[in-house]
Amino acid sequence: MAVGLHDFPIIPEIKGVRIGVAEAGIKRPNKKDVVIFELCEGASVAGVFTQNAFCAAPVRICQKHLGLAGSRYLLINTGNANAGTGKSGLETALKTCEALADSVGVPVESVLPFSTGVIGEPLPVSKIVAAIPAALANLSANNWHAAGVGIMTTDTLPKGSVRTFDFEGRTYTVAGISKGAGMIRPNMATMLGYVCSDIAMNVDVLQSILKDVVNKSFNRITVDSDTSTNDSCVAVATGMAGNEQVTSIDEPLAQAFITAFTEVMQELAHAIVRDGEGATKFVTVEVVGAAIESDATKVAFEIAHSPLVKTALFASDPNWGRILAVVGRAGVQGLDVDRVQLHINGFEVARDGGRSPDYLEEHGKKAMAPAEIHIVLDLGMGAESDTVWTTDFSHEYVTINAEYRT
Amino acid sequence: MAVGLHDFPIIPEIKGVRIGVAEAGIKRPNKKDVVIFELCEGASVAGVFTQNAFCAAPVRICQKHLGLAGSRYLLINTGNANAGTGKSGLETALKTCEALADSVGVPVESVLPFSTGVIGEPLPVSKIVAAIPAALANLSANNWHAAGVGIMTTDTLPKGSVRTFDFEGRTYTVAGISKGAGMIRPNMATMLGYVCSDIAMNVDVLQSILKDVVNKSFNRITVDSDTSTNDSCVAVATGMAGNEQVTSIDEPLAQAFITAFTEVMQELAHAIVRDGEGATKFVTVEVVGAAIESDATKVAFEIAHSPLVKTALFASDPNWGRILAVVGRAGVQGLDVDRVQLHINGFEVARDGGRSPDYLEEHGKKAMAPAEIHIVLDLGMGAESDTVWTTDFSHEYVTINAEYRT
Repeated sequence: MAVGLHDFPIIPEIKGVRIGVAEAGIKRPNKKDVVIFELCEGASVAGVFTQNAFCAAPVRICQKHLGLAGSRYLLINTGNANAGTGKSGLETALKTCEALADSVGVPVESVLPFSTGVIGEPLPVSKIVAAIPAALANLSANNWHAAGVGIMTTDTLPKGSVRTFDFEGRTYTVAGISKGAGMIRPNMATMLGYVCSDIAMNVDVLQSILKDVVNKSFNRITVDSDTSTNDSCVAVATGMAGNEQVTSIDEPLAQAFITAFTEVMQELAHAIVRDGEGATKFVTVEVVGAAIESDATKVAFEIAHSPLVKTALFASDPNWGRILAVVGRAGVQGLDVDRVQLHINGFEVARDGGRSPDYLEEHGKKAMAPAEIHIVLDLGMGAESDTVWTTDFSHEYVTINAEYRT
Repeated sequence: MAVGLHDFPIIPEIKGVRIGVAEAGIKRPNKKDVVIFELCEGASVAGVFTQNAFCAAPVRICQKHLGLAGSRYLLINTGNANAGTGKSGLETALKTCEALADSVGVPVESVLPFSTGVIGEPLPVSKIVAAIPAALANLSANNWHAAGVGIMTTDTLPKGSVRTFDFEGRTYTVAGISKGAGMIRPNMATMLGYVCSDIAMNVDVLQSILKDVVNKSFNRITVDSDTSTNDSCVAVATGMAGNEQVTSIDEPLAQAFITAFTEVMQELAHAIVRDGEGATKFVTVEVVGAAIESDATKVAFEIAHSPLVKTALFASDPNWGRILAVVGRAGVQGLDVDRVQLHINGFEVARDGGRSPDYLEEHGKKAMAPAEIHIVLDLGMGAESDTVWTTDFSHEYVTINAEYRT
């Protein structure tokens, strides 16, 4: 069902990163469900996490460990989110970290745990611990595709992105994977994204870039408006490219990195939407002409979340009145509906608070037919704008979410 | 598909109110789609309307007319919402008012217009005008059921409610009808509700009671989170019961009226949810233990709007982790997830931030099986509470909204 999702790219070796996958038997049989990232000593590791107050146990431990020691291992399991599991959830997450730390001889704080899957079930610690040796034996610099597959839950395809860029005679690589298809309305990062580069970069600079770029990528996608308990996005800079460490965001190399990093992050975020649960459309909602940026963000998300807009998109029905109705209830201070304009895939649909004089139903049908829909809503109030990416709402979405546990 | 919706009640004559219905041919053939309420001279009429900035042309005219003259006629059409129709929408709405006003010899300001149906299409003025004589010829005090049918759009059943109460030797009647099944998340009132009583009551008192009670009824229901452009709720007090006019909300008669009025309003609001598009469940979301009431309201609506919660309800799946995930993202200041408790239909499901120690999956299955679901979420922070009523999210919802115009 994925909409325009390209094949998983060929990701070259990123020096300082090795990946191992294994089968712990948490998901269905014959599915890889444990992934380990091994990072070289001295790598800069930055992370952003869900703002959900019911954040999962592994998220809490990640946040704590990130500040305590050099991060050397990412331990990821799918099939169980270890969320809504109270105090025992923290204990079980820590136990899996300890098992890995003991196996490889690093402090437990050097292990960052991540879980995704069903909420509220106890984490199957012994299954995960038993799979760690196999994952370690599998460590390789060329396991990106296997890792993309290993972190999938309701995803139909693995999601990867890679960019290389040259700067002053050196070539740098930025590559990452992501997963997620439902409970997608990230608020800090999505469940889950991992982006690595061989660039040498101070961890504070990397953290600040990650925080910034996440607001133009993962924090601007929504499938179903539900912010996950487990959203986590990690950026790694191994430093193996040999450059002098970047220590300021203002350096030209930092800017070159940001360009490549943003492209990778947006491609990974869009991939989640393209593979959104039940998606038949990839929808770009661009709100322009706002007086303040937060109005544009708010209106874009309200359009992207409206079940009536989403079902009309599923039907390729140019029921544009539903979009105007959403704009009207979005709570924009000082909105003058007579100045609002709406374009869909280049066709002017509405202006002056009503249907455009030249609009014909056949224009709307033509505009709504493709799998890729670009909605441009002009509030007519100022120069601020924002963009959100989303999917339609299909029977398949209901089927997936009514049957997810059964 | 309606969940537990009782038969339309037998509504006795309310002196001072007559109703006529007719077929204008806006909806499908052989469907009544024009309804006229005739009110006696001197009736108090109060109204609350959508807060959607894209409010429909008839809503704007209603608000204007309500203040200008004694309201004598309500003119309602279905099949066309006359919303998103710009300036010409205001002209067409006014033309239908003028046609009725001329027929019966009242000022145009004495006519209140209401429209419901597709957004963005021009109002078929001539069809409505042509149906007015038939509707006037049909005027009768016993046409409540026909009116309930006449205002339906995607509703599967007409919705009515009636209460009588005695006070100091007199009997008073309160009766009303409502409609709506989609684009239901009223913000002031729902599309559409009409409640009449024979009580004599000052219009300011009636308006204040209506505004208050709407916040315990229509403004606490949601089907799909989309606030309509046409929401309107009107209360009429004809004064024909013979009591001395109520001039203060503190009078004992006012209090007796409020009790009956609230019951009618809640029953009409619940009827809209029970007949919500694709509904297979009637769900009461009660949030208690909030520090401030607005937190309770916010959390209740977030639970009621979550597509993941709604699809789990459709599947009768006790996927309670999705409810906790919503609570966590609802933005409650100072939330301590370890104090949150969740009951579903009397079964304790979660406490202390995780699954209840005695909880078994079979409890959850038993709790979720009935068509009527009562969720009680205790935030553990204080004594404030609020309740919202909603439906599940089914395949039928997608079908209805993907095919509504085609």
